[in-house]
Amino acid sequence: MNVEGHNAVATDTAGLEVLAREECLRLLSQAPIGRIVFTDQALPAVQPVNFAMLGTDIIIRTSPGSKLAQATQDTVVAFEVDDYDVTERTGWSVMVIGLGRAVDDPAERAVLEALPLNPWAPGSRSHYIRIVTDIVTGRRIPTRR
Amino acid sequence: MNVEGHNAVATDTAGLEVLAREECLRLLSQAPIGRIVFTDQALPAVQPVNFAMLGTDIIIRTSPGSKLAQATQDTVVAFEVDDYDVTERTGWSVMVIGLGRAVDDPAERAVLEALPLNPWAPGSRSHYIRIVTDIVTGRRIPTRR
Repeated sequence: MNVEGHNAVATDTAGLEVLAREECLRLLSQAPIGRIVFTDQALPAVQPVNFAMLGTDIIIRTSPGSKLAQATQDTVVAFEVDDYDVTERTGWSVMVIGLGRAVDDPAERAVLEALPLNPWAPGSRSHYIRIVTDIVTGRRIPTRR
Repeated sequence: MNVEGHNAVATDTAGLEVLAREECLRLLSQAPIGRIVFTDQALPAVQPVNFAMLGTDIIIRTSPGSKLAQATQDTVVAFEVDDYDVTERTGWSVMVIGLGRAVDDPAERAVLEALPLNPWAPGSRSHYIRIVTDIVTGRRIPTRR
């Protein structure tokens, strides 16, 4: 990684621009869909979900008996958002690593229930998962011009 | 999961439509970008990449010394593509589980080099990863109308 100056853009060993944490959090807050990465029966698994943010944490609603609810309980998970432009062949991605946990405390639930978070998928989505954000990283493909 | 009849749409326990393998492979073949899920220093990791398909396998180009090259070698990985419509609040996703391996054999490399696969990211991308597709699953949020 290059040294990051006031105007310099840091790049990683793959030549991608390294995004600052504040930029990553801004991009996260604007993304309609993210992908939660977890382990399902010892295999890697990934599932798109809509979500909301509470501070820097990621909030997801799912059904209480879902695979997602089970597999993310008290487990370190990844959460990813990205966007890309096929014509320009560019894009960015942001990844969060954090501890997933169920939200059972009534006071905490009340806060989450006030968020603008209506699941796209059908059925009861009364189970809240909170990913307590620890590491936030982001990369962008530099524009060629 | 419901029993799938000739005209019935199978749904999973979360109420999502279960896509047939052929439909999953068709959607994979049309997606410009996918996300490879792997483990990086014991933590879950996910990285968007452009890719090509060879039969049902996923082909990715990266740099030889990249984290991705190291972390996907002879390891079971997941690969995901999706698309969604924010206005309609619908979308689909397809996930592949398979063994990742480096392609070193010259004859096999020659086949891959003939694929229409030009990485978006800058730099040398002379390392080919092949995900040998094993499990293919897909889900779609049913339309409300």
